[in-house]
Amino acid sequence: MKIKDGLVTAVFAGTLAATTNAHAADALPSWNEGQAKQSVVAFVERVTAQGSPDFVPESERIATFDNDGTLWSEQPIYFQLAFALDRVKALAPQHPEWKDKEPFSSLLRGDLKAALAGGKPAVFEIIVATHAGMTSEEFAGVVHTWIATAKHPKTGRLYSEMAYQPMLELLAYLRANGFKTFIVSGGGIEFMRVFAEEVYGIPPEQVIGSSGRLKFEIRDGKPVLVKLPEVDFIDNEADKPVAIQKHIGRRPIAAFGNSDGDLQMLQWTTAASGARFGLIVHHTDAEREWAYDRQSSIGLLDKALDEAEANGWTVVDMKDDWNTIFPNLHKVEP
Amino acid sequence: MKIKDGLVTAVFAGTLAATTNAHAADALPSWNEGQAKQSVVAFVERVTAQGSPDFVPESERIATFDNDGTLWSEQPIYFQLAFALDRVKALAPQHPEWKDKEPFSSLLRGDLKAALAGGKPAVFEIIVATHAGMTSEEFAGVVHTWIATAKHPKTGRLYSEMAYQPMLELLAYLRANGFKTFIVSGGGIEFMRVFAEEVYGIPPEQVIGSSGRLKFEIRDGKPVLVKLPEVDFIDNEADKPVAIQKHIGRRPIAAFGNSDGDLQMLQWTTAASGARFGLIVHHTDAEREWAYDRQSSIGLLDKALDEAEANGWTVVDMKDDWNTIFPNLHKVEP
Repeated sequence: MKIKDGLVTAVFAGTLAATTNAHAADALPSWNEGQAKQSVVAFVERVTAQGSPDFVPESERIATFDNDGTLWSEQPIYFQLAFALDRVKALAPQHPEWKDKEPFSSLLRGDLKAALAGGKPAVFEIIVATHAGMTSEEFAGVVHTWIATAKHPKTGRLYSEMAYQPMLELLAYLRANGFKTFIVSGGGIEFMRVFAEEVYGIPPEQVIGSSGRLKFEIRDGKPVLVKLPEVDFIDNEADKPVAIQKHIGRRPIAAFGNSDGDLQMLQWTTAASGARFGLIVHHTDAEREWAYDRQSSIGLLDKALDEAEANGWTVVDMKDDWNTIFPNLHKVEP
Repeated sequence: MKIKDGLVTAVFAGTLAATTNAHAADALPSWNEGQAKQSVVAFVERVTAQGSPDFVPESERIATFDNDGTLWSEQPIYFQLAFALDRVKALAPQHPEWKDKEPFSSLLRGDLKAALAGGKPAVFEIIVATHAGMTSEEFAGVVHTWIATAKHPKTGRLYSEMAYQPMLELLAYLRANGFKTFIVSGGGIEFMRVFAEEVYGIPPEQVIGSSGRLKFEIRDGKPVLVKLPEVDFIDNEADKPVAIQKHIGRRPIAAFGNSDGDLQMLQWTTAASGARFGLIVHHTDAEREWAYDRQSSIGLLDKALDEAEANGWTVVDMKDDWNTIFPNLHKVEP
């Protein structure tokens, strides 16, 4: 799959730069000089220096990243919810009953607030209607079409073009230094896997997320995996370390998040002995992105911000620490 | 962890040989010349030849292996059950009540048959008593001690020395040709991960198996993952393709098994378009290993043997196709 030539070029240019300058600070050109950048580079140099007391063998250089708000934006609504809403509209002709059934009727009238007034059960109904009742391969096709075409209402960019350029550089820099990078997100595992390799350079087997139950069946003589309308696992808060153990089976040495949903992943990662690194992306840039933290209904960052100080985790101030937020789409034209 | 110097040398010697002879048939010296070996080599050459219509990019070269009976022996009882029985004996002093409680009382009297007469619930009780109620890290320590010391009653070898030499060579040969090798086993995921990297060269994040539920807790100010006495997932039969989708998110192009528990994994792997490879290890060597198939209570191979013929899967006849079964422990002394 190719989402868009320009973005792919941007990501791979970053990978190349990091490969040829594995130890150079200019593998992170979108990071301003300052404590955040220094702390990342110092950590990587500590764990990769042969003979250093903090040296970590490559096979143990595991780094885990939250996705929404850490690798790409999450405002004004989680991008996967935007996908689900678009999907409700696309499926509406096949569901005339939705006209009189909440949360669908409000959604189809364009009243998102009323639709989500039903809280978690309403969101669950929307997710089931748009994420289940088809095979895994059919679902991947639907997501692929959406991610290649749907645009964000505020920026006009493809959603995949709202990955953070500094984080793309950081992923490439870590990999160039022998790290294995994983996504550990509350987002849907089968949703993210469609684009994670192209956008982040992270293959499907290194994407961990929330999931619905699957069922193996033989249909017309061919085996398929059917997505059932049942939750299997919600990958958030105290279940992020659980997911890490289930999927990776090794404790990360570095973890990156942006909200209280990432608190336990950061605790689990940084509490063990040896060199450990925790980082929180703090959304402080209302002009270039969004500014929110302790009061936000999306990406609430409160306890984790307090714990960052107590535990010595790096806090990225988006406004001060990043000179670029999103990939510069013009720069990368051939 | 080091289990035993000799075995490690054997495995890594195999890796090295395969790396320097990525396309050479002599990366598989323990395989006799014949159809089984030819089919493996021909498949690998087809999918790795640049410009071939069957060429598969490295990121999609996923190969999945069952463990018990495919990568190591499984007779006279699954090795993990042997671990559990040894563990019951070790824990008995702390459980005086077991003297009067089945299946423990029979076990402690040495009567395995009576202990297992209770069927699955009895096995479940043994597993819970020996696999839960501690942290993941504590459990890994217990398995580590056992795998480094316990010996098989018939061969007198460490259990890890009953990995099949031809399969160790095959794993290394595939990896030298850009494959990513995964275990997809009914065995316990946290059990296998303790030794899979050292014995098979397969890191924890590429080991998939059955699991119990985990719970994240803060104990004495430190985060831990506690193993609960509840089944989370049984990785067998129709749930093997489900596990592959959950953990890998990409359909394998090659799958290796030995029993009806692997049937659906082989179906799922080989039913898609493009070059696909399925292989079944048929236990036919009562002298050097064990001989069993359609009537066996362990490693039952019946339907999958019929389907192998219908679908063109390779069937390894252990007696005829392998000139060596277990690593030659003398050969590898320095």
